[in-house]
Amino acid sequence: MNEINPNSNRDLLPEPTIRRLPWYLAYVTLLHNNNVEYVSSTKIADELNVDSSQIAKDLSFLNIKGKTRIGYEVASLETALRDFLGFDQSHNAVMVGSGSLGAALISDSGLQRYGLKIVAGVDVNPDIIGSQIGGIPIYHVDRLKELVKKLNIRIGIVAVPVDSAQDVADTMVAAGIKGIWNFTPYRIRVRDGVVIANTSIYSHLALMYNRLGTLNR
Amino acid sequence: MNEINPNSNRDLLPEPTIRRLPWYLAYVTLLHNNNVEYVSSTKIADELNVDSSQIAKDLSFLNIKGKTRIGYEVASLETALRDFLGFDQSHNAVMVGSGSLGAALISDSGLQRYGLKIVAGVDVNPDIIGSQIGGIPIYHVDRLKELVKKLNIRIGIVAVPVDSAQDVADTMVAAGIKGIWNFTPYRIRVRDGVVIANTSIYSHLALMYNRLGTLNR
Repeated sequence: MNEINPNSNRDLLPEPTIRRLPWYLAYVTLLHNNNVEYVSSTKIADELNVDSSQIAKDLSFLNIKGKTRIGYEVASLETALRDFLGFDQSHNAVMVGSGSLGAALISDSGLQRYGLKIVAGVDVNPDIIGSQIGGIPIYHVDRLKELVKKLNIRIGIVAVPVDSAQDVADTMVAAGIKGIWNFTPYRIRVRDGVVIANTSIYSHLALMYNRLGTLNR
Repeated sequence: MNEINPNSNRDLLPEPTIRRLPWYLAYVTLLHNNNVEYVSSTKIADELNVDSSQIAKDLSFLNIKGKTRIGYEVASLETALRDFLGFDQSHNAVMVGSGSLGAALISDSGLQRYGLKIVAGVDVNPDIIGSQIGGIPIYHVDRLKELVKKLNIRIGIVAVPVDSAQDVADTMVAAGIKGIWNFTPYRIRVRDGVVIANTSIYSHLALMYNRLGTLNR
């Protein structure tokens, strides 16, 4: 559901590894909350239905070693994963489009716990511009370049209607945004050097409807 | 970013096809709004960066034919795609967990335009139970089975803390829910016959941070 235009050779981990690391993090966080001290890759493998050699390989990218027969120290593994994934740093982002989904994402304080700090929103709707959503000020999109510079924004989240997705992305890139998180089903195209991550929630819905076999045809 | 336990051989389309169909829909909706009448698979291919023979193959699952040298009629293709994907039908769903993300998703009226109708929420927090979010009533989770039956709910959306994800999923399955849309990073396990779709927004974030090369290490 996700494609990336890599723009750096540094730390270019395989995408499937990056996808699995947050699963491990979720599981060790759960163990930590339950006061479990050590976990083996075999145990993680059983719980998450991932091959244990794959887990050892994925975790080898981190600067952490398990102990023979005991496994990984849970607290250290949790910290190492959060750090490695960038969830403990703060990445400033702008929300582009403050309609239903955009406003919902701005209001989701959970993103902040994963290192994403939405510091501003932009829109073209005069009824919204100048207001705040969840304490975040909404500006006219014409001020994007100024905001990107002033607020040290590198990531832009796109939650606009399909019609404007490409235009908005072009404006974002011109304003200096380096990473675009696209929540629209439109396939945004960007020049090399700009990262795109697509979260295709409507594709997931379509897949679920299809697999449930609930469609009348 | 998405795994499915298929439970039916009926209409078992390849997952990549189902993932691409909403892209085509987004694009033809855009064309329709711009009063374009016909579109060729070559044109769609150029715009979306998908091979044109792949597009023809994907669209062959639909009951629609393009005309030689003219292509597909845009309005008919849009209708056929929406219908095929189930976006024009109404699928009743319950939101499990009405914290930050859950409340945000309940408030996202966009989901309804894609056929998902959230008809109730359940929670364990006494401060929220009995209230409404975006006009949707929130009940105690103990009433889930009754709600599923009374409101004809087949889909449950999981937006609870990682600690409770598996327990909540077990409760949902016991209550008769057939499809689980998991927004937590926890790898929920379900018995055969229950469909799981994972929307791993935190994995997408991790991937973006990594590809942007903004991590301090």
